[in-house]
Amino acid sequence: MLQTLQTGPWLGLFDLLGIAVFAASGALAAAGKRLTLVTFAFFALVTGVGGGTVRDLLIGAPVFWVQDYRFPAVCMVMALLVWITPQRIWSEKALDWFDALGLAAYAVFGAAKSLAFGVPPLPAVMMGVITACVGGVIRDVLAGEPSILLRPELYVTAAALSAALYVGLVLFGIDGPLAAGIAAVAGFVLRGIAIHRGLALPGYRR
Amino acid sequence: MLQTLQTGPWLGLFDLLGIAVFAASGALAAAGKRLTLVTFAFFALVTGVGGGTVRDLLIGAPVFWVQDYRFPAVCMVMALLVWITPQRIWSEKALDWFDALGLAAYAVFGAAKSLAFGVPPLPAVMMGVITACVGGVIRDVLAGEPSILLRPELYVTAAALSAALYVGLVLFGIDGPLAAGIAAVAGFVLRGIAIHRGLALPGYRR
Amino acid sequence: MLQTLQTGPWLGLFDLLGIAVFAASGALAAAGKRLTLVTFAFFALVTGVGGGTVRDLLIGAPVFWVQDYRFPAVCMVMALLVWITPQRIWSEKALDWFDALGLAAYAVFGAAKSLAFGVPPLPAVMMGVITACVGGVIRDVLAGEPSILLRPELYVTAAALSAALYVGLVLFGIDGPLAAGIAAVAGFVLRGIAIHRGLALPGYRR
Repeated sequence: MLQTLQTGPWLGLFDLLGIAVFAASGALAAAGKRLTLVTFAFFALVTGVGGGTVRDLLIGAPVFWVQDYRFPAVCMVMALLVWITPQRIWSEKALDWFDALGLAAYAVFGAAKSLAFGVPPLPAVMMGVITACVGGVIRDVLAGEPSILLRPELYVTAAALSAALYVGLVLFGIDGPLAAGIAAVAGFVLRGIAIHRGLALPGYRR
Repeated sequence: MLQTLQTGPWLGLFDLLGIAVFAASGALAAAGKRLTLVTFAFFALVTGVGGGTVRDLLIGAPVFWVQDYRFPAVCMVMALLVWITPQRIWSEKALDWFDALGLAAYAVFGAAKSLAFGVPPLPAVMMGVITACVGGVIRDVLAGEPSILLRPELYVTAAALSAALYVGLVLFGIDGPLAAGIAAVAGFVLRGIAIHRGLALPGYRR
Repeated sequence: MLQTLQTGPWLGLFDLLGIAVFAASGALAAAGKRLTLVTFAFFALVTGVGGGTVRDLLIGAPVFWVQDYRFPAVCMVMALLVWITPQRIWSEKALDWFDALGLAAYAVFGAAKSLAFGVPPLPAVMMGVITACVGGVIRDVLAGEPSILLRPELYVTAAALSAALYVGLVLFGIDGPLAAGIAAVAGFVLRGIAIHRGLALPGYRR
């Protein structure tokens, strides 16, 4: 309720999008490990709400999904969806693309909710980045995979672009929904190029 | 105090049981790595109170062991117990069985405390599952072992059975202590069969 | 503000020291993986504020860096510093030494802030230990390295020495700043000997 009032209903779409696609990416990780349906649901839930949970704990908000059964229900639906569909319809990079969508959506929503809770701009950007990356990190740790942060292509940078762009545009007086749209698309495109073309910033070489 | 008032003293036994056996499983993991006594204590504490800590943070309760020295003291005692006893008295599967007890006890207590804090039934079940599994996950991550979630036998499913059964029985009007006993035994038996016979649900194969 | 009032400005130095050196150790871990500047910043932030964040969540304090941009700014500066300097000026053990400084400073500050928030002595010592070790654990998990807890030399023990010594000295009526200085130096020296000489307590061998 508070969340809706302070960030507008349009931002709820970003929250839901982040949850749904991260949940799918968690279930796909479980699929890769040939786990059971209940474990699919566990991976979907933890990956789906993980980033938002950390965000809410950090900014002192009540954890969003604990009092509202609709959020965990979305995770269950995504787990079931991945479970009942044949794996061949999921391209090899499906997990990456779902993750990219969740990354951009969560970076924007994390920054927006933080601003709404009175967090100053610089920490709000960081909050967007951290909460966008936590879902994927939790999923990789649970699945025993090397963290997505260590891949050579841009990842954290795409989240940082979305979060910083959103905060910057809002500070410049751009309307929230427009700023959110631009910022999310920018981060998603950057991450998409990174996935598709292997785009990477120069790594440390000194 | 609040915890006792709202869940009844009998549920405190489940809490204590979960803490003690998870603490032992943490200390046994440290034993497997040939670590020192102080590190035993650290593993015992973090594994013992980890699940309950996450539960309390999620439902907005004060973290139960921070103001009450008796809970961490239990963890220290378990660490010492594992330290002073020869390893041969711990069967190869001792860690699994301790973990199974903690899993069932924490799943019930996590769901019960969440209901007592006004969490709706569906998230309360999930809360039981998550908090029951977090202790083992933290232990495995700290010890650098593959997460117990990835093993083929039933694990998350046993926690889900305990948590869902408890919430379901309470909703049907069964007395709390009876519901808790039935639910914990059911989850423990299911996990026990999984350990003993390698029982597993069908994994994803599409 | 509350933090400053209750623990005194001198303790703020320990907090800042812990943040800065853990941030540097996070950036150095990113350097070892040849990551990008933005990922350096992410590792520096998460490693730098990770321990204090867990401490604040556990004791129910507002998370210290969320409302104050100066703390994350320190992490960014450390990331940049590591990025622009040639790797050869960082000795092979630089990460270990930075980590040792952060360990001692955070153990003392974690225990002190916990006491200031009314946590009893035994859990306050544990709080110091946990929060001192969490930064390094997060860094190692993110970097996909075996946790520092598993190394044979003393690590958790050094944090325990600092935290217990501080709480003990304060209970005996020693002035806070003096107690903090003694405790931090003791833990740092112990960890230093462990790094330099490979000092280890006897491991479990039963």
